[in-house]
Amino acid sequence: MPVFLDTSDADFELSFSQLLTAKREDSPDVDDTVAAIIADVRARGDAALVELTAKFDRLELEPSGLRFTPEEIEAHCASVPANERAALEIAAERIRAYHVRQMPDNALWTDPDGATLGWRWGAVAAAGLYVPGGLASYPSSVLMNAIPAKVAGVERLCITVPTPDGVVNPLVLLAARIAGVDEIYRLGGAQAIAALAYGTETVAPVDKITGPGNAFVAAAKRRVFGKVGIDMIAGPSEILVIADGDNDPEFVALDLLSQAEHDESAQSILVTTDAAFGKAVCAEIDRLLTELDRGPIAGASWRDYGAVIVVRDLDEAALLSDRVAPEHLELCVADPLALSKKIRHAGAIFLGQWTPEAIGDYVGGPNHVLPTARSARFSSGLSVLDFLKRTTLAQMTPQALRAIGPAAETLAASESLQAHGLSVTARLRKLND
Amino acid sequence: MPVFLDTSDADFELSFSQLLTAKREDSPDVDDTVAAIIADVRARGDAALVELTAKFDRLELEPSGLRFTPEEIEAHCASVPANERAALEIAAERIRAYHVRQMPDNALWTDPDGATLGWRWGAVAAAGLYVPGGLASYPSSVLMNAIPAKVAGVERLCITVPTPDGVVNPLVLLAARIAGVDEIYRLGGAQAIAALAYGTETVAPVDKITGPGNAFVAAAKRRVFGKVGIDMIAGPSEILVIADGDNDPEFVALDLLSQAEHDESAQSILVTTDAAFGKAVCAEIDRLLTELDRGPIAGASWRDYGAVIVVRDLDEAALLSDRVAPEHLELCVADPLALSKKIRHAGAIFLGQWTPEAIGDYVGGPNHVLPTARSARFSSGLSVLDFLKRTTLAQMTPQALRAIGPAAETLAASESLQAHGLSVTARLRKLND
Repeated sequence: MPVFLDTSDADFELSFSQLLTAKREDSPDVDDTVAAIIADVRARGDAALVELTAKFDRLELEPSGLRFTPEEIEAHCASVPANERAALEIAAERIRAYHVRQMPDNALWTDPDGATLGWRWGAVAAAGLYVPGGLASYPSSVLMNAIPAKVAGVERLCITVPTPDGVVNPLVLLAARIAGVDEIYRLGGAQAIAALAYGTETVAPVDKITGPGNAFVAAAKRRVFGKVGIDMIAGPSEILVIADGDNDPEFVALDLLSQAEHDESAQSILVTTDAAFGKAVCAEIDRLLTELDRGPIAGASWRDYGAVIVVRDLDEAALLSDRVAPEHLELCVADPLALSKKIRHAGAIFLGQWTPEAIGDYVGGPNHVLPTARSARFSSGLSVLDFLKRTTLAQMTPQALRAIGPAAETLAASESLQAHGLSVTARLRKLND
Repeated sequence: MPVFLDTSDADFELSFSQLLTAKREDSPDVDDTVAAIIADVRARGDAALVELTAKFDRLELEPSGLRFTPEEIEAHCASVPANERAALEIAAERIRAYHVRQMPDNALWTDPDGATLGWRWGAVAAAGLYVPGGLASYPSSVLMNAIPAKVAGVERLCITVPTPDGVVNPLVLLAARIAGVDEIYRLGGAQAIAALAYGTETVAPVDKITGPGNAFVAAAKRRVFGKVGIDMIAGPSEILVIADGDNDPEFVALDLLSQAEHDESAQSILVTTDAAFGKAVCAEIDRLLTELDRGPIAGASWRDYGAVIVVRDLDEAALLSDRVAPEHLELCVADPLALSKKIRHAGAIFLGQWTPEAIGDYVGGPNHVLPTARSARFSSGLSVLDFLKRTTLAQMTPQALRAIGPAAETLAASESLQAHGLSVTARLRKLND
């Protein structure tokens, strides 16, 4: 049974702290293994990729087989039923429409001292997306990673996806094609990250790597950070639902189970002003768990990390939610937009009872790659900004240099950086000649 | 002597590749030491900070002495000469004016399906800035880190700065006060990063850590990444100057030396269409090196990593510059803005002969915390965005859910996530009742 707390309980603060700090993930220390794999790929390139793929994915390839050919992609895509293809296209279109709005503006202005200042955004030239294999091989994640990259203007976009025993998920290939991905490789694990970061004979290196993965992938991304850019290291996901009593318990139960069914270490929390509603949701969950295919996974998550918290009012609910800083936050209340303004830390907010979190996973438009494990305190979901970088611009006129140069000379002197100061002094001298 | 290359040389490509891949920094492997320090601070809090500060900074403190008191800050600030105070205030005002323009907009719109979508930006609640001690203790860097944080709306902003042997740089404290920093601690090294990330009795934990540091600080930041946000790991800095022959060789020589004097591993590269001008700059540098206080440092950098490259035209210059992706790029040409549009990868661009890079270090307005070591290919200088995070918003109406819900059901089924699908199905069923 999940914990059932009430903020008026004497020991609430202790119980809530335990909920917040519960270690939900055992990260095995795979750092040495990963370091060796990366070194091997750097040293031997394709030969290492072929060997490692035979070892970990039980798949014998020639180097030429590392990359899917256009014909292979076409054949797999053709095998996808029409309804699934249509659903992917609807999702892609909505995700694209949302992310296009994120494109930031360039700026250039001249200030009162005569200095022209500004910045200009530009796309990363090449990006690589890691797609996990097996059960966690989600075509929706391909769309969510690839579309922002293409909207940003990334010219060369690669995917690596492991195909254990040669099994291919055709939906992943179709999602990649719909999103405009340029290259797809049969690669997984730390060796895929190494190939993307350092390049081999077959895989040209990229500048930025995104996408979720297991402990080996996460450790490899951490290691190549600096050589290339990476997105956040994803942890187990969580949902927090704030609901008043005026909701359908089955809706909320299914939303909580949507997180729980991902992973035994997912966390689902209901915060409600109505204890009876909280109990009704628990009863619905117990019923649904006996029916769901992934009931054992969802049940373990709900049992070990689930919680129902009864609060006095919605202000208290917002404060508790901010301490969780949930990846997904549903506001099932009469005025969800008003309540959303009291929330400071959340990856994505779903407003009102007609917005199940699952809509956001697939077709809402906003990105479903979101900050986990409390990191919404300091980070954001994936966006076009992750595939752009900004160059700042500055141009002094003689007038501007006369106005602000002396302050630069003073500060350079105070930092004992003589050439810095002289580079200004020499120019001011010439202007005064 | 630095290398003097010409793109028409037969072996140019080889020489240029060597220049690009020259390993300029020996990163000692301090990871085990840093792991032990972090574990110690997590386990023993202030007691560990006091012990480590005595050991590394030769400074005996009580826990109450870890934080500067308002009276101590005031006394140090009062010791700063008026001209230095005025220069810091000019710099702060210009940096603030630039960064205010970076504040991004919130958005909320309703799409044709009736879905309301958008996002909202919010500030990180608490941030910590690491300021190095000793020679690299730059008050300008305090301004460049702290002002974007305060512009973003960070409520609690801390600085840690080591004070080896108790020596305090009063300009650092004054810069912190001008920038609006809330707390200043006498802490350095990995122990400062550990205190900021995990908190102790005296130091409350923060959500985001920025600022440069030595190998211990960099390793500690890499380790706490995920628990808190961090900025890029800074490497040795570089400048690339593109100049035609119509420039003052002394100006360009001083600008190249401004980078070189930072650090023996800094890199200064001149790309010019005029070989004679290139030779004149080299001669100026040789003369200046005998005069500069930091001549030995600048001389070592110029000798080991400096380069002059003669190109056929400015298009070729832009292509070479993009392969370097320099932290700082000066365009000393007749139409610098036009040339800047051909540049894809640079941290900051300085336009025209009256814009020495040193202006950007202090008073230009754009941030001087910039991507080093080729990372301008995928990352940007520090900005207000580093202290903000974005929450996405989505609200479905019954109409919107009817329109796009079925696609979500299809995709959930294709990913075998049954509760995801049912959370939509249950709602559609109720709507159709």
